[in-house]
Amino acid sequence: MRAVALGGGHGLHVTLSALRQITPDVTAVVTVADDGGSSGRLRRELGLLPPGDLRKALAALAGEESTLWSTVFQHRFGGTGALAGHAVGNLVLAGLLEVIPDPVMALEEAARLMDVRGRVLPMCTEPLDIEADVVGLDEDTTAVRRIRGQVAVATTPGRVRRIRLHPAGDPASVPTACPAAVEAVRDADVVLLGPGSWFTSVLPHLLVPELHEALITTTASRIVVLNLVPQPGETAGFSPERHLDVLCEHAPRLRVDAVIADADSVPTPDRLRRAAETLGASMRLDGVASADARDRHDPKALAESLRDVLAAVRG
Amino acid sequence: MRAVALGGGHGLHVTLSALRQITPDVTAVVTVADDGGSSGRLRRELGLLPPGDLRKALAALAGEESTLWSTVFQHRFGGTGALAGHAVGNLVLAGLLEVIPDPVMALEEAARLMDVRGRVLPMCTEPLDIEADVVGLDEDTTAVRRIRGQVAVATTPGRVRRIRLHPAGDPASVPTACPAAVEAVRDADVVLLGPGSWFTSVLPHLLVPELHEALITTTASRIVVLNLVPQPGETAGFSPERHLDVLCEHAPRLRVDAVIADADSVPTPDRLRRAAETLGASMRLDGVASADARDRHDPKALAESLRDVLAAVRG
Repeated sequence: MRAVALGGGHGLHVTLSALRQITPDVTAVVTVADDGGSSGRLRRELGLLPPGDLRKALAALAGEESTLWSTVFQHRFGGTGALAGHAVGNLVLAGLLEVIPDPVMALEEAARLMDVRGRVLPMCTEPLDIEADVVGLDEDTTAVRRIRGQVAVATTPGRVRRIRLHPAGDPASVPTACPAAVEAVRDADVVLLGPGSWFTSVLPHLLVPELHEALITTTASRIVVLNLVPQPGETAGFSPERHLDVLCEHAPRLRVDAVIADADSVPTPDRLRRAAETLGASMRLDGVASADARDRHDPKALAESLRDVLAAVRG
Repeated sequence: MRAVALGGGHGLHVTLSALRQITPDVTAVVTVADDGGSSGRLRRELGLLPPGDLRKALAALAGEESTLWSTVFQHRFGGTGALAGHAVGNLVLAGLLEVIPDPVMALEEAARLMDVRGRVLPMCTEPLDIEADVVGLDEDTTAVRRIRGQVAVATTPGRVRRIRLHPAGDPASVPTACPAAVEAVRDADVVLLGPGSWFTSVLPHLLVPELHEALITTTASRIVVLNLVPQPGETAGFSPERHLDVLCEHAPRLRVDAVIADADSVPTPDRLRRAAETLGASMRLDGVASADARDRHDPKALAESLRDVLAAVRG
């Protein structure tokens, strides 16, 4: 079974960890709009794809036992100097991206080194900027402000209405999808969206035209995995069903086969069921939160839920 | 034939490139007192072994055709930011040295990645400081000043009389040799000293007591390869024979089998022959300079010279 997970950051790490328990053929399609932390510093300094989410996806698909190189990739320099906070893998990816002109090939080399089962692809081969229409930042609570940058959007105290994506420094242009990512979505048997930062890691994939089209036309089963808790900042106060509404607003033609949510994180299941049905999806409530941290998915529980859902939707 | 080359920087790169044409069993023993450039920055920031000379030695022993990873290791970040000038390999080595407690094992992993034939060892497993007695810096031309740090010593406008080595930040202590390096020298069939920055890359090995002793007692043939030109700063104005005198002053018990010098770089061969004989060595004059750059050895020509010399001294 060919599975594709779209996302970024911790959310994508969870779906990849779950999917690798189900099938060896997993492709990660990773957002490239990050402008914070080690990734943001590298991106500003070298003009490269932000490597952090790519590195995390590689680590999620690396050998069962964490291999030496995945440990090295995830290791962060300490201290108080110029390197403090940089993950070693971000620096290695930056080096590969400078030496190998094609980012897909650069990531293949990193994957080989880390003994990755599966593939990690950027959603676009150039860095992107994210831009959001946000309300609630002014006295006039209906005034819409334009907020730029992933960190600014993810942490806005206002309410995000809508996001847009464009190539870095070129607000008039539309991003071009990485062809291999489009192909992976087209050829997939199952495609996963979420969990993750809804506006800055999950929705961006729908704002790249070729990827949007591939997600709508693919014959793959489409599954949405909802977050466990609203994220302070970009989705503060969001109900589970509001996440689906926002998805629908950004991709009205998108049909979904199933929506997976954590049973204990859905206060009004009927509302969520109706929102799911609007997308053409069945709702599946399972215990998918980690026992230790209620705001994190348990990859094993998510894998079980996915297995059941896949059996149901693929018949 | 087991060959060990001791040195650092470009000089070591040359001997390693030459030796690999003669035997597959090459071990580099590398100085760890560098405090300049990318290495110096990493060393100051993270307290690690300066990685630059180790990286250059790895690259010299990497696959015939420069492999992808040796290209990536040698690639330097450009721009004007915090990473400008850092070689990617220095950052990878820094990561490995932080994750793997034993530097010898960390270097083995890097060697595996770069498809290295042979071994690269640090002369000590902790960073060292170099200190020199220098004259000619004051009006009183006999006044001796103590100069600290590899860069300061290598570029001093004065004349270096003598150097000392100690663990970084601990001027009262004597450095401890890396046991694997001592063993390599003891078990070698041939040991090479030079070419390279005489005081800061070649002599340091003689100032680590266990390594000094191993160099004196090994049954290996000992060959000294002289520099082509005096180095502005540390050996400005040095004749070829003066290089041997200085070697003798730092290691009076050291016996040498042969001294290789470039025929066109020795103005007074008789004097050099006498200086070599003082060390117990025969003198070999060959055309070993590169045709393009008279201040660089040609690895192929050096390999031929070494082959002849080895045939003569090993009988």
